[in-house]
Amino acid sequence: MLATTTSVSVPHVVIIGGGFGGLETAKSLRKSDVQVTLVDRHNYHLFQPLLYQVATGGLSPANIATPLRSIFRRQANCEVLLAEVQDFDLDDKRLLLADGELKYDHLVVAAGATHSYFGHEEWASVAPGLKTLQDATSIRRKVFLAFEAAERERDPKIREQMMTFVVVGGGPTGVELAGALSEIARHTIRNDFRHIHPEDARIVIVEAAEHVLAHYPEALCQRAANLIRDLGIEIHTKTRVTKVTENEVCLSSEEGDQAIGTQTVLWAAGVHGSPLGSRLARACGLETDRAGRVGVTNRMNIEGRDEVFVIGDLANCTDGNGVRMPGLAPVAIQQGQYVAKKIVATLSGIQINEPFVYRDRGTMATIGRAKAVVQVGKRESVGFIAWLMWLVVHLLQIVQFQNRLLILFQWGWNYLTFSRSARIITGDDRVILIRDELVDDKSATNEKVTGMQVEK
Amino acid sequence: MLATTTSVSVPHVVIIGGGFGGLETAKSLRKSDVQVTLVDRHNYHLFQPLLYQVATGGLSPANIATPLRSIFRRQANCEVLLAEVQDFDLDDKRLLLADGELKYDHLVVAAGATHSYFGHEEWASVAPGLKTLQDATSIRRKVFLAFEAAERERDPKIREQMMTFVVVGGGPTGVELAGALSEIARHTIRNDFRHIHPEDARIVIVEAAEHVLAHYPEALCQRAANLIRDLGIEIHTKTRVTKVTENEVCLSSEEGDQAIGTQTVLWAAGVHGSPLGSRLARACGLETDRAGRVGVTNRMNIEGRDEVFVIGDLANCTDGNGVRMPGLAPVAIQQGQYVAKKIVATLSGIQINEPFVYRDRGTMATIGRAKAVVQVGKRESVGFIAWLMWLVVHLLQIVQFQNRLLILFQWGWNYLTFSRSARIITGDDRVILIRDELVDDKSATNEKVTGMQVEK
Repeated sequence: MLATTTSVSVPHVVIIGGGFGGLETAKSLRKSDVQVTLVDRHNYHLFQPLLYQVATGGLSPANIATPLRSIFRRQANCEVLLAEVQDFDLDDKRLLLADGELKYDHLVVAAGATHSYFGHEEWASVAPGLKTLQDATSIRRKVFLAFEAAERERDPKIREQMMTFVVVGGGPTGVELAGALSEIARHTIRNDFRHIHPEDARIVIVEAAEHVLAHYPEALCQRAANLIRDLGIEIHTKTRVTKVTENEVCLSSEEGDQAIGTQTVLWAAGVHGSPLGSRLARACGLETDRAGRVGVTNRMNIEGRDEVFVIGDLANCTDGNGVRMPGLAPVAIQQGQYVAKKIVATLSGIQINEPFVYRDRGTMATIGRAKAVVQVGKRESVGFIAWLMWLVVHLLQIVQFQNRLLILFQWGWNYLTFSRSARIITGDDRVILIRDELVDDKSATNEKVTGMQVEK
Repeated sequence: MLATTTSVSVPHVVIIGGGFGGLETAKSLRKSDVQVTLVDRHNYHLFQPLLYQVATGGLSPANIATPLRSIFRRQANCEVLLAEVQDFDLDDKRLLLADGELKYDHLVVAAGATHSYFGHEEWASVAPGLKTLQDATSIRRKVFLAFEAAERERDPKIREQMMTFVVVGGGPTGVELAGALSEIARHTIRNDFRHIHPEDARIVIVEAAEHVLAHYPEALCQRAANLIRDLGIEIHTKTRVTKVTENEVCLSSEEGDQAIGTQTVLWAAGVHGSPLGSRLARACGLETDRAGRVGVTNRMNIEGRDEVFVIGDLANCTDGNGVRMPGLAPVAIQQGQYVAKKIVATLSGIQINEPFVYRDRGTMATIGRAKAVVQVGKRESVGFIAWLMWLVVHLLQIVQFQNRLLILFQWGWNYLTFSRSARIITGDDRVILIRDELVDDKSATNEKVTGMQVEK
């Protein structure tokens, strides 16, 4: 028998997911007379906005991950449970775990989202997305192995493929990834190789919308696009990906179709609600939307179930002003605060009928080295000052004080020396037979059979 | 076709392995008129003496790993090759790689060692060793998941198993691992759980010899053993492991046999030369010794092959004083310097006939928090001062200056706050079904089938 919580007489609030939304909900309940159980598959809270820094070797995984237990060490009414939720029994108010079950009085589902290939799940193996620490270390591995392979490749066409990096999606993640790749190629590893010039790497952003960073005002988008091009990055807007294989990506736009030879496609395009979303929807007799999200009222609860809330990237909702909520950390955080307040009020017999209202405090994204775009209300900023703002805001949001200092130190160091010390290739204990991964046509196979000679 | 080195007319020195020995050889050749190729399966140099800190969440993998390319960025005569050596053709002076071949004029094999289970390779899956970054993150995962599992376990007997940690081997690595485990249980995670008291964890060192840290003078061993016991660690000396399963380890000593219920056995006992050792020996018509090492002369070359050297953990040799060389970093480093000097002399037509002579500058090991044993010649030190010495020496040896500062900062922080921020559980993206891992008897399986209820 598995024990999770001791017998309690106070109401039991179960929160699924230790991301921004779940964490904030649990913290907001710290002074309330409830028992909180925070369930997560991982033992850490992940600061996702900096995941691209891990993927590009600027930070270590532990720098942006904080153990959930240490966050809640002093919050006596909160218990952390490392477990995987498999299904919901809403009538009986219980969760089915992979290895047991868990009863609740109030349920907050903040299970987040994963990336979506818009129905082309077969692209997942060649075009990794960036949502988890595992994703980040796989991308890090893929990127740095590409340069290693190019260093050894003699065929100029294949070498060009190896040194071409295509980022699908021109939102903040895509732009930040591409900017970091450019910094790596042009500065970090510039003098590391003997047979290639890393600064010749071709970096491409593919975006379906009219602009990169499309949710910013148009003037800002234009200035951002210029900054991105200054880094030597190609931007293909109004362009869709029609095919991804191990050595090319096919694009389609109004101007026609084209294929780019590349062995590294990084996926920063669509998001799709966690699989838990569809299970929850099914348990309610509902369906998720096309993005796998669960529809909730503007009070964040499921229609007809006052005790079941969905917040963050998994929730499909408009707020009290009728604004559709984007998948951003501040939205999840404010929803967490709202839901906690609503639960506490219910316990005191008060009914909060005011809907959730999102206060937009602005958005920001970095573009490569020491440049950023920031929008706060009607004020906009592009460049170095914007980057300093980005830096301060992100550092302050990091949960653990030690990590703030470590990241500040590491960034300062990386900035001054152009280095990226975390660019180690980990994963499989053997080195991947780089050559084998990419050989799939006959001529190359023959070459392999006849033996590849390395000449001095 | 794969390209590795450009055409060169100067002699080509190929070094296998970017550990302490290989690195030092390559660096010592920086001013010589040779072309150096350093081949490694990984793209980084690993500072192995601090691997136990990664395994116990005190440091991140990148803190103790330095990209080889950045080490040799400014050494124009040295090229780094990320590749796997598969075999040797000594008559033709070439290496067979997984994906090509490589010619040499002088060969330095510094491929190191892996752990040995003394013929019980089946224990590898339940008792992980500690030689690579992958090993370290697996151990980290295993240790922290054990506490997570104990938190949820109701059966006191199984919970006790989960909270028992057995370290096999009482050398420096074993003692350092056990000391770090004790610090984790008694300080780091002391207040993180609601249903267990991590400080009740049982930590056991099993050592076949008469003392832990057996290569130190006996008086020092005794004092070290007392320090270890002060940390609440049990020491079983003159004891052999006869069986390891998923939930117990069987021990045998003069006093009789006993079984300890545990789900975490960490292997810090034997070492065995890299598999490349036996291939090299076969290519020479030799056999490795029982520890998989290759016998070389006291000039570090293979008998009859003046151009093939073996150094570091893979070499079985005595030095010019007839002293058998232990598998320590300083030995490998000094051998690297010696071999480089010998190669350079040969090129000038000079024959160095003086054998390699090891200068022992002392050995040291930490014991938990802020304590260590140090031996320098006839001088011995135990305790806090010894720990400061340990700290300074290790920091100075770390290759990259940034990592020195980062580690100093992280240690300072960990020391003051008792925290270990790198204790994230990574690996499989899903949480491991902890329960399933350990269920292997029928009663438990039945329990699972009837459904494990988690009660509030």
